[in-house]
Amino acid sequence: MKTRILSGLIMLPLLVFLWLGGKWLLLACFAVALMGVREFYNGFRKMGVSPCAPIGYAAAFCLYTLGLFLLSSPTGTEYIYPLYMLWFFGVTVASLLVLFKIEKRTLSDGMATLTGVFYVVFFSFHVVLVDSFFGIAVWLIVLTAFGTDIMAYFSGMAFGKHKLCPKISPKKTIEGSVGGILGSMVLCLLFAHFFLADFSDKAMLMGLVIGLLGGIISQFGDLTASIFKRHMGIKDYGNLIPGHGGILDRFDSVLFTAPMVFYVLWIWNLICPFGW
Amino acid sequence: MKTRILSGLIMLPLLVFLWLGGKWLLLACFAVALMGVREFYNGFRKMGVSPCAPIGYAAAFCLYTLGLFLLSSPTGTEYIYPLYMLWFFGVTVASLLVLFKIEKRTLSDGMATLTGVFYVVFFSFHVVLVDSFFGIAVWLIVLTAFGTDIMAYFSGMAFGKHKLCPKISPKKTIEGSVGGILGSMVLCLLFAHFFLADFSDKAMLMGLVIGLLGGIISQFGDLTASIFKRHMGIKDYGNLIPGHGGILDRFDSVLFTAPMVFYVLWIWNLICPFGW
Repeated sequence: MKTRILSGLIMLPLLVFLWLGGKWLLLACFAVALMGVREFYNGFRKMGVSPCAPIGYAAAFCLYTLGLFLLSSPTGTEYIYPLYMLWFFGVTVASLLVLFKIEKRTLSDGMATLTGVFYVVFFSFHVVLVDSFFGIAVWLIVLTAFGTDIMAYFSGMAFGKHKLCPKISPKKTIEGSVGGILGSMVLCLLFAHFFLADFSDKAMLMGLVIGLLGGIISQFGDLTASIFKRHMGIKDYGNLIPGHGGILDRFDSVLFTAPMVFYVLWIWNLICPFGW
Repeated sequence: MKTRILSGLIMLPLLVFLWLGGKWLLLACFAVALMGVREFYNGFRKMGVSPCAPIGYAAAFCLYTLGLFLLSSPTGTEYIYPLYMLWFFGVTVASLLVLFKIEKRTLSDGMATLTGVFYVVFFSFHVVLVDSFFGIAVWLIVLTAFGTDIMAYFSGMAFGKHKLCPKISPKKTIEGSVGGILGSMVLCLLFAHFFLADFSDKAMLMGLVIGLLGGIISQFGDLTASIFKRHMGIKDYGNLIPGHGGILDRFDSVLFTAPMVFYVLWIWNLICPFGW
């Protein structure tokens, strides 16, 4: 528990970047993407798979450079959207190029390179997308992720009896999972009520929906990271802050809540346009 | 050679779909994507990896359904572009879900699922994109792919001395490769001159650029397929037409020339707008 609270405190300075938004947040996310993809590929190396790290870094650089266009004018830049698709094409081709050293490379080397780019770089980029398109709503990403994590921990401690998925993560309980979802819903509801009323007259419903989906998907993100680590034979992705794991251990839920928040808000805005 | 000419003839009926365009071409590409992803996953099974085929089929269905929007109005539908990104997110999450049966699944099962969707489904979809946005220019995709293939074969036969990459594909020669690129350039140049003059006053330069890039990338596509098949321990992806391999053996180059043609035309149009 001490570890959990301490690692929570370590995240606090990062919230400054959320508050600053714009270029600062983009830079922070870019740094997280670079460190994250490095940790992810190092994990693969522990199981004898050798992804090509320069492709991961170059992919992050290109995607976050595209993100700079968004910052200048999020809604006047529809014309650059195909560049995102070009990015997907380029990443896939680059990962396949890895395989051309046919005697030194296995198919897994190329596939792990690709998976790392999508899982770490593409997913994390949605923080920038939410910030560019929906401003203050970017806080929902961390509220739902950390709200779920903390509330799942405490309700698991208090009521936990039935194991959730002992083979993947032996300590998690169904009670903790439900508590996490409820915690995420309450936090997002409150945030929407106080800060998103300008967006929509149904802001609270929006908060509730995002809180519910976020509570589920952030646990899914947590478990996905556990699965990768189990197969890689590691306990933590890294040792960025001694005793508190790597950057991916801290952001495994955010990787999934960020896209969820973006697409829910984007579809919501398409159906009943925001009034901001 | 008989095989090569016969398999060329077998492709002819498919050209009808190119000529019809629109919904018919979309349906034909959808069918190729489904059969292609099936063959690709079957190849993985030969090496003990078990991708999740239903995810591949569902991904193809969703992407080609999105393609229907494009057909109705290619340029008035920028607002749906984020749905493509949602598709990328959904495909990645679904492929990661595969891993939740932690005792039965290896990381490769999920990564191969993902790779198949990007390599076969996403790449092939660019035929629909080119058809929707650039109409008749869709012919460039097959002209450069089959032009390279046929001219590489004949110039390799006539002048071939120096091996290109004996470890991947023992029969290919540098002379054949250069001949293929030249053949592709000539074909695309002629096509641009006769059919694309309305697009741009620099149509012939455009044909030359696409012919050059297409000649390179279609051989890259051919070699990529060879690398996959070598690792999978198979000679052909399938046996769709006895003695002529599977659908992926026929379309391995098109998978790469289609995105190339789309992005070159799209960037070209962005820099000096087409006059059509």
